[in-house]
Amino acid sequence: MAPEFSKNPPFEAPALGEPYLLTPGPLTTAYSVKQAMLKDWGSWDADFRAMTADLRRRLLDLIGDEKGAYDCVPMQGSGSFCVEAMLGSFVPKDGKVLVLANGAYGLRAAQTMDYLGRAHTLIDKGDYLPPRGDEVAAALDADPAITHVIAIHCETSSGILNPLAEISDAVHSRGRKLLVDSMSAFGAVPLEVSRIPYEAMVSSANKCIEGVPGFGFVIARKTALEAAKGNSHSLSLDVHAQWTTMEKTGQWRFTPPTHVVAAFIEALKMHEAEGGVAARGARYTRNRDVMVAGMKELGFETLLSDHWLSPIIVTFFCPADPNFVFSKFYELMKEKGFIIYPGKLTVVDSFRVGCIGRMDEHVMRRVVEAAGLSLAEMGVTSAAPPSAALDERSKLAA
Amino acid sequence: MAPEFSKNPPFEAPALGEPYLLTPGPLTTAYSVKQAMLKDWGSWDADFRAMTADLRRRLLDLIGDEKGAYDCVPMQGSGSFCVEAMLGSFVPKDGKVLVLANGAYGLRAAQTMDYLGRAHTLIDKGDYLPPRGDEVAAALDADPAITHVIAIHCETSSGILNPLAEISDAVHSRGRKLLVDSMSAFGAVPLEVSRIPYEAMVSSANKCIEGVPGFGFVIARKTALEAAKGNSHSLSLDVHAQWTTMEKTGQWRFTPPTHVVAAFIEALKMHEAEGGVAARGARYTRNRDVMVAGMKELGFETLLSDHWLSPIIVTFFCPADPNFVFSKFYELMKEKGFIIYPGKLTVVDSFRVGCIGRMDEHVMRRVVEAAGLSLAEMGVTSAAPPSAALDERSKLAA
Repeated sequence: MAPEFSKNPPFEAPALGEPYLLTPGPLTTAYSVKQAMLKDWGSWDADFRAMTADLRRRLLDLIGDEKGAYDCVPMQGSGSFCVEAMLGSFVPKDGKVLVLANGAYGLRAAQTMDYLGRAHTLIDKGDYLPPRGDEVAAALDADPAITHVIAIHCETSSGILNPLAEISDAVHSRGRKLLVDSMSAFGAVPLEVSRIPYEAMVSSANKCIEGVPGFGFVIARKTALEAAKGNSHSLSLDVHAQWTTMEKTGQWRFTPPTHVVAAFIEALKMHEAEGGVAARGARYTRNRDVMVAGMKELGFETLLSDHWLSPIIVTFFCPADPNFVFSKFYELMKEKGFIIYPGKLTVVDSFRVGCIGRMDEHVMRRVVEAAGLSLAEMGVTSAAPPSAALDERSKLAA
Repeated sequence: MAPEFSKNPPFEAPALGEPYLLTPGPLTTAYSVKQAMLKDWGSWDADFRAMTADLRRRLLDLIGDEKGAYDCVPMQGSGSFCVEAMLGSFVPKDGKVLVLANGAYGLRAAQTMDYLGRAHTLIDKGDYLPPRGDEVAAALDADPAITHVIAIHCETSSGILNPLAEISDAVHSRGRKLLVDSMSAFGAVPLEVSRIPYEAMVSSANKCIEGVPGFGFVIARKTALEAAKGNSHSLSLDVHAQWTTMEKTGQWRFTPPTHVVAAFIEALKMHEAEGGVAARGARYTRNRDVMVAGMKELGFETLLSDHWLSPIIVTFFCPADPNFVFSKFYELMKEKGFIIYPGKLTVVDSFRVGCIGRMDEHVMRRVVEAAGLSLAEMGVTSAAPPSAALDERSKLAA
């Protein structure tokens, strides 16, 4: 991965003393996105209804839905609220879900199904190994009761970009329905319905569109939205009811986060101006490539081989050097203006660095510089991971 | 109600061209509240964890809990999400709820119980008649299976302030548990646990504390929070799980609306600086008194008699004059800088004017002036309601 340089000037820095958020969201957003929140709107008023319509239309523009078969339904709450809304609304009470897990977010989908008390089965690949198309095909062939499969697009626990196309092929060739959690990928990684004809997918305002947190959205086939009537276990999270109210009145059923919506529309405009999904993905890919190359020069190793690295977030092994203490490293990085993210692996110590948000490769070079300085301050002479970590990684190649 | 005048200078006006929101939330907030959103926070970071702790402590300061028996749990989503979270978390699967309804929010609580599939019974007083203590007592005496009663503090459908003290007495004298939806009243109408020892109550960021929308909060007995384990029908809305995670890690379980939280903390500081619940309630009461007196001078009549008027929002009958068209009146008021709210009564036409948000009686005088001008522009010579409306009101006296 040879770093490629953009010709853009450096992005504006956060305000003095404010660190960059190298996290998978909430993330560093443009100042103009936050400035869009400096006004109050009446949620019943026509001005705000027009904003809601604009938001829905702009999101649908991102999925390449030439037949107009899909619609977009925003939903209050965090991304996990939207995943729960999707599962509760599109999986009938007598349906059965195959959950594909390789990290915290896949397991959370399974936990959600436990709460719902609806049938489900799990393929759990552990911390980061990808669920493959042939495994999905075998599981579906073995259990005709399975009606839906839920896949995580980018599993941010490890940062892996799961092989959605081969999963989609396995699901659709067997006449089942695909649900996608594209929380941390949508807007930067292509998810065109012509290639991956999902039944429904969810994402959130504060990820690759670079808005602020407060709501998410479901994009689903209109036929699925119609069929969802009466499925939901929850009044608040009923996607069908939210959709029919929005279609009829232009309003959200319950109070929307008006300011966060305004910020999101500004973020969508910036996303379009940058060049849409392709350009956003290219910037994040440059961010990742510059950052990973620099970190490797310092001796750090990534959990994943290059093939599986997403442009969203990257997991690094903690160095074996006993002078390395993550909490200290975190504070030293924060002092230098960068908030990094703890790891979520169960087997070896790790940490994560996000590539998304309002920043470019110039910022990523400073991240690497800060990491080098922080290691020196801690007296860490080598960032090389323990051999157990490399053993772990070799599983992926096997 | 003789209007009483504050000695404060007029509150700052919204930005040029921005109307005041005379609605029950989202409402007009202080500019400094919105300015608090001009920064990004990492939700995992210690700075944000300290903000969450500060928010919880400040809210608990408002309830007069001298024994430290209660705790506060913020929850993502709108107010209705919080009501559902409260019902799903505190009513065990084999519990039974008596729902006290006199408007849309009471009925929504009953609808939520339908979704949950848990036992409930309803006292429905129609559009605005208050549920009284003796009715509640009789219902509880007649049905020993009832474990919980849910009451709406201020039912914003009509603007009535329900008689919570006598309801609380009836509930607690019979050993049952009280749940309170104080969405639109908390922070301006006293709700001290020494007087009304509820099991749990909910309110929202964008009501009388004058924050922006995006989350709400549950305040509950710690014993109730402990006992709530395993009750919830929903992963996202599980108050017990949110509480235990927050106690253990200082974090919200799922991504919090960081900017909205920052705005809310600024709003809480302003609430304290103004003089807390008493002063906030006094300002809203002046807003109401000035506005109602002026509207009555124009010939408008309130749905409720003075005794039942809340300082939150007031329902007026639409004038009988055939030249009065609400949608036109709405637009004329908006042109003059005021967004009013449609009515929600089923029997007669009505509209509502909110008294809450960052405004004082000087603003309310301009509201009355705008209403007078708007009537004149429509060619309405009398704002008197139809006789059917006054017949309706006479029910309240009966």
